[in-house]
Amino acid sequence: MKKLINEPSAVVDEMLDGMVAAHPQQVRRLDGAEVLVRNAAPVEGKVGIVSGGGSGHEPTHAGYLGPGMLDGAAAGEMFTSPTADQLGEMIGACDGGEGVLCVVKNYEGDVMNFDTAAEMADMEGVEVVQVVVNDDVAVEDSLYTSGRRGVCGTIFVHKIAGAKAAQGAPLSAVATVAEKAIDRVGTMGMALTSCVTPEKGEPTFELGDDEIELGIGIHGEPGTERTDVMTADEVADHLTEAVLADLDLDAGAEVATIVNGMGGTPLSELYIVNRRVQEVLGEREIETHEAWVGDYMTSLDMCGCSVTVMELDEELKELLTSSVDTPALTVAE
Amino acid sequence: MKKLINEPSAVVDEMLDGMVAAHPQQVRRLDGAEVLVRNAAPVEGKVGIVSGGGSGHEPTHAGYLGPGMLDGAAAGEMFTSPTADQLGEMIGACDGGEGVLCVVKNYEGDVMNFDTAAEMADMEGVEVVQVVVNDDVAVEDSLYTSGRRGVCGTIFVHKIAGAKAAQGAPLSAVATVAEKAIDRVGTMGMALTSCVTPEKGEPTFELGDDEIELGIGIHGEPGTERTDVMTADEVADHLTEAVLADLDLDAGAEVATIVNGMGGTPLSELYIVNRRVQEVLGEREIETHEAWVGDYMTSLDMCGCSVTVMELDEELKELLTSSVDTPALTVAE
Repeated sequence: MKKLINEPSAVVDEMLDGMVAAHPQQVRRLDGAEVLVRNAAPVEGKVGIVSGGGSGHEPTHAGYLGPGMLDGAAAGEMFTSPTADQLGEMIGACDGGEGVLCVVKNYEGDVMNFDTAAEMADMEGVEVVQVVVNDDVAVEDSLYTSGRRGVCGTIFVHKIAGAKAAQGAPLSAVATVAEKAIDRVGTMGMALTSCVTPEKGEPTFELGDDEIELGIGIHGEPGTERTDVMTADEVADHLTEAVLADLDLDAGAEVATIVNGMGGTPLSELYIVNRRVQEVLGEREIETHEAWVGDYMTSLDMCGCSVTVMELDEELKELLTSSVDTPALTVAE
Repeated sequence: MKKLINEPSAVVDEMLDGMVAAHPQQVRRLDGAEVLVRNAAPVEGKVGIVSGGGSGHEPTHAGYLGPGMLDGAAAGEMFTSPTADQLGEMIGACDGGEGVLCVVKNYEGDVMNFDTAAEMADMEGVEVVQVVVNDDVAVEDSLYTSGRRGVCGTIFVHKIAGAKAAQGAPLSAVATVAEKAIDRVGTMGMALTSCVTPEKGEPTFELGDDEIELGIGIHGEPGTERTDVMTADEVADHLTEAVLADLDLDAGAEVATIVNGMGGTPLSELYIVNRRVQEVLGEREIETHEAWVGDYMTSLDMCGCSVTVMELDEELKELLTSSVDTPALTVAE
């Protein structure tokens, strides 16, 4: 294993310090915690939006801290849920008096620890609502989940909930629009290669030189099938069709899409996939309003991609395209 | 080789179409050419800023098309200079009556073809000035260059020249500030692994499981030394010290930095490198005004990074931080 790290056990700690060193005007670290918050947190009179989960998915989650998106992001160890204590500390630091929305990806550890943290916060008088993102259409139940996994569609949920909160909406309305986004978003991923975690130092799973895995999870969890290497167009067709079948979209629908890199994939390849994704949508007379292409939710150094589609209505369209200023995503006014 | 592509020979063409499909409000493709321009090009009364070079370095160059940065970006085949014809077509499409600045990375093919294109444009009455970026401090002369290579510091030059042009400055003033940026910027890179080009399908160079290469070029050109695997801090020290020695900065200097990923490197690792880069600068009482971390100029799927440092004055600081709206870089107002 060759990685640009010092000690495997120090990766998360040093990465967080490196993020603060890069973006000191935007984010700060809570003392002694693996939690970053936007500098302005808590924003008085605004619903706080927080998320968190295992590390290894950068820029998820701390890359999305800033006006119009997240107030707090908790970083667990690599592919490991943050502790309830850390989540509780984050919730407290992000409550500006209007309560806090927790955006949780559906993994058993995350759900359990966010539940505990929400109870703790509730006892301290902080109103907390949780929403659980389960956008991965590949598998029902899996290695770390009951029900579907939460993957890259979570970024759309962050953006939409963050925009609604920035407008001054109350917690109940922010939670309602986040649930609407969750109901309308689907994702499916694939891998050309396994990720290698710093602690283990070798591939999480074996994949032959002529094989790919469809329906892969963002921690290398098994997908739906292994198959011979496919062309980019075949991959795009397979992933897009699977998501569209799940969302059951009609001609005339408006959508936003993400072609997301898993971390080790060149941007040129993601654009080639996007080319075909947009063709497939066009053939079905589905109109793409926003097409994001890049590394939004990664799996360390894994090569591969995922395709996310979210059906839009006027409210979601407005919230998705409103201005935001974070380390990983900036939308100008 | 496993890649998300269709045909190796179609990679550049399909990638460009995929970029346009992702950013139709921002960029368009010139008919029959491997050239993207911003939709508004040519902008009447503004100096046009164009760049170009071999593909494989995405988001360089087309990712930087937009208000405040580039007007045109020519994409050669993988690691191959664009033809003079394509460059000439780009220059013509980006001249809004005030002339065009070509930002050229110092490679023999690029320099030669931009020279020819500039002569052609001149004959058609377009005023053209070229600046050549040669920021790579690792080696004098190299596989594809006389003199130093042009690498990631080019992105700062794009930003600064683009901002100056957006202010309405004449071509001579835009060229002068671009030259100032070039004089003040240095970069050095390293690789953990080789890139694999689509056409060749195997590593461009061999590197052992326990080796890294320092001073690597963005096409896998040989660097200054091969050494045993180092820690992230040792790598950061080595690259930063080499650049600082070249720039000869004193305590009290203000700089902007880029910790750039080569394409296959997880963002978490780049932040770990940035943590140490900023420590080294702090120890020398050099103040970092802007610290960019991410994939700005890549080498396909290569794992590794580069460190760029540019000395700022008040003019460069203002131009570097002014608003810009491009697919790969957005700075809010």
